[in-house]
Amino acid sequence: MSTISIPVRTPALTYNVEIGSGLLPFVGGRVDALLDGALSAGKAKVFVVTSPEIARLWAAALLAGFPTPPTVLSIPAGEQYKRFATLETLLEQLAEGGADRDTVLIALGGGVIGDMTGFLAAIYMRGIRYIGVPTTLLAQVDSSLGGKTGANLAAGKNLVGAFHHPLAVYSDIDVLATLPAAELRAGLQESVKAGIIRDRALFEYLDTHSDKVLASDPAALTHVVAASVQVKADVVAADEKESGLRMLLNLGHTLGHAIEAATHYKQLLHGEAVAWGMLAAIAIAKRRNLITVDEHDRMERVIVAYGPLKRFEADPAHLVALTAKDKKNRGGNRSFVLPTSIGTSAVFKDVTLDELTYTAERMMAMVARDGVA
Amino acid sequence: MSTISIPVRTPALTYNVEIGSGLLPFVGGRVDALLDGALSAGKAKVFVVTSPEIARLWAAALLAGFPTPPTVLSIPAGEQYKRFATLETLLEQLAEGGADRDTVLIALGGGVIGDMTGFLAAIYMRGIRYIGVPTTLLAQVDSSLGGKTGANLAAGKNLVGAFHHPLAVYSDIDVLATLPAAELRAGLQESVKAGIIRDRALFEYLDTHSDKVLASDPAALTHVVAASVQVKADVVAADEKESGLRMLLNLGHTLGHAIEAATHYKQLLHGEAVAWGMLAAIAIAKRRNLITVDEHDRMERVIVAYGPLKRFEADPAHLVALTAKDKKNRGGNRSFVLPTSIGTSAVFKDVTLDELTYTAERMMAMVARDGVA
Ligand SMILES: NC(=O)c1ccc[n+]([C@@H]2O[C@H](COP(=O)([O-])OP(=O)(O)OC[C@H]3O[C@@H](n4cnc5c(N)ncnc54)[C@H](O)[C@@H]3O)[C@@H](O)[C@H]2O)c1
Ligand SMILES: NC(=O)c1ccc[n+]([C@@H]2O[C@H](COP(=O)([O-])OP(=O)(O)OC[C@H]3O[C@@H](n4cnc5c(N)ncnc54)[C@H](O)[C@@H]3O)[C@@H](O)[C@H]2O)c1
Ligand SMILES: [Zn+2]
Ligand SMILES: [Zn+2]
Repeated sequence: MSTISIPVRTPALTYNVEIGSGLLPFVGGRVDALLDGALSAGKAKVFVVTSPEIARLWAAALLAGFPTPPTVLSIPAGEQYKRFATLETLLEQLAEGGADRDTVLIALGGGVIGDMTGFLAAIYMRGIRYIGVPTTLLAQVDSSLGGKTGANLAAGKNLVGAFHHPLAVYSDIDVLATLPAAELRAGLQESVKAGIIRDRALFEYLDTHSDKVLASDPAALTHVVAASVQVKADVVAADEKESGLRMLLNLGHTLGHAIEAATHYKQLLHGEAVAWGMLAAIAIAKRRNLITVDEHDRMERVIVAYGPLKRFEADPAHLVALTAKDKKNRGGNRSFVLPTSIGTSAVFKDVTLDELTYTAERMMAMVARDGVA
Repeated sequence: MSTISIPVRTPALTYNVEIGSGLLPFVGGRVDALLDGALSAGKAKVFVVTSPEIARLWAAALLAGFPTPPTVLSIPAGEQYKRFATLETLLEQLAEGGADRDTVLIALGGGVIGDMTGFLAAIYMRGIRYIGVPTTLLAQVDSSLGGKTGANLAAGKNLVGAFHHPLAVYSDIDVLATLPAAELRAGLQESVKAGIIRDRALFEYLDTHSDKVLASDPAALTHVVAASVQVKADVVAADEKESGLRMLLNLGHTLGHAIEAATHYKQLLHGEAVAWGMLAAIAIAKRRNLITVDEHDRMERVIVAYGPLKRFEADPAHLVALTAKDKKNRGGNRSFVLPTSIGTSAVFKDVTLDELTYTAERMMAMVARDGVA
């Protein structure tokens, strides 16, 4: 088995992300080695947090690799369970199961399971260790890295959480085989984003190898996941807490989040909303002459290739209004990430309401014309 | 108004604890200054977390000092509300009240309010700032310092939490006037502990000025609180996460916690259990000739002076069993903090079951003979 390891450096510690095909059965041994044999010596308990569906598909392959069988805790799949009340249930289960300061949690699942498990680890006994085993493309290239953990409140998404880094992340490409095609494509938009903001070679690979990538060819996916992880690792290393460089990861996300909010998180997957948001961002960049028409068209072609660009309903003016996080800011300019070439980008603090209105209207016209039902 | 300021140094930041009489109305201005005028400029919202009873007594004095009126969130008093479900309610109230990354929480209350508010601040939007305004002696000398925040699970006390330091702590001695006498005395046992483990002068002051201290004389209480805070600040600065030096704060707490557990946290206040635990610890120290009989008797006299030593029911063997945190460890030696003189102490890793049994039986005989109903 050949895998790629990428170190993620943070001010406090460095951890490794290992990516490859056939990795799942080796995770137990890897973790045991990382803990100097604490698992096989019976000195540290392991709890795997997952969902019934993912457990049915992939838990056996993961569990088989552990010297002693971990305890499996299961929560229903879906964003609606990413809630504080769910955490309480899991915390009580950890305590009843005898979890202590030496216990290690394993997040086996997508971003929902990963964010919740990381947060559990952050707050159980004021912080225990955890390992990421992401099973969606989005989780492999994005949510499992960077240390952001948390849950939703009724009042809004990800309003509660903590920064807490995993001990290691193991991304087995094979588990993506059972992922719904729409989830794979939506996640790949984050790789397209990584290419546009910081990695021209990744962008070109995605452009020229879209057939293999979309057919889940293991070597192609391993390459794409690894390159995407490298982009996020670089950005996170330079800038742990939110600001400066980390902002670049928001390409397509300002309008993407507005679309998600306007459609109440029901019509599009996150990556699908980000795809529309990226189309809107590159349109502003072209209008500003930051990028050439050719560059713009090539970016558009790749975003569309990893589509489908799904139809949704929203009023352009409402979308523009939703890009103002801060209500006091409604009238002013926005900070916006724009590409400056294929593979470079920057934060522009002077994007005007006029530009936003232009691109939102243009985008809604595209939705009407090209959006896939 | 004359106050004492004590810096608490941590690896990440330094914050000040200000102690004095008549401080409450000045807290608003102090916080505004600390935030470079963000409160008076309307740039940061303030939420005060407290209990109805404390709010009735002391909120007006605190709130009057703020340039704009803070929002007050209230939770019922008592350890039974120090729960995850209570946090969820408060988190939703914060979000509905428009709390954002610049918001500052103020904990106005005892250790329960302080621990919960610090934890709220640790997890709301992955961390916002908070200020301690402790209103019990225990909170002023102990729980408001050191960055430990959290809540209880059904499965056990303080099983969930985070390390999160306040921006500053303001301890107004005057608020202790409304504290039940038993709470004051129980809290003062932590000051006795501070004196024994690290500050002979504090111990001697407590010995010679017990009348004034127990009558809540402002100058005497200010001195005792400040000296106790200094001890904890020194220990915390040297050793942020639990280990080494910080262990010394556990004098009297190994058996104290066992007593609390054996009596289901219902018969004694925490400080009352610690008082018995300290009597047990100094008895072992005397038996080991770590301290002289005179030193022992003087410590005993001061602990008793800040009593009453309340009666409780427990089986000595059960108490000894409960001192083993780790069930596997039932048969072995225990780590135990023992005084080595008045004002110095150390962790002893070789305290035997025999010594524990000796001191637990001796203690239960004292309970039967001298315990106050
Ligand atoms: N922490 C961060 O930095 C960060 C970054 C981006 C997104 N997120 C969060 O991530 C979450 C979205 O993550 P997601 O897109 O992975 O969604 P998800 O976790 O809800 O997974 C999507 C669906 O796929 C299923 N699934 C997962 N793996 C599977 C597999 N291998 N085979 C079959 N089905 C599988 C899940 O059960 C679920 O139904 C959101 O809550 C978002 O807030 C966090
Ligand atoms: N974080 C830490 O490092 C740390 C250290 C020690 C204890 N603790 C925690 O602290 C808690 C105990 O704190 P506590 O002893 O302050 O108890 P508490 O907060 O429950 O307060 C005791 C009682 O006094 C009332 N009260 C508080 N201030 C008052 C005032 N000025 N006038 C009248 N009544 C007042 C409260 O409403 C309550 O009924 C426990 O939950 C414990 O786990 C934390
Ligand atoms: Zn995203
Ligand atoms: Zn204590």
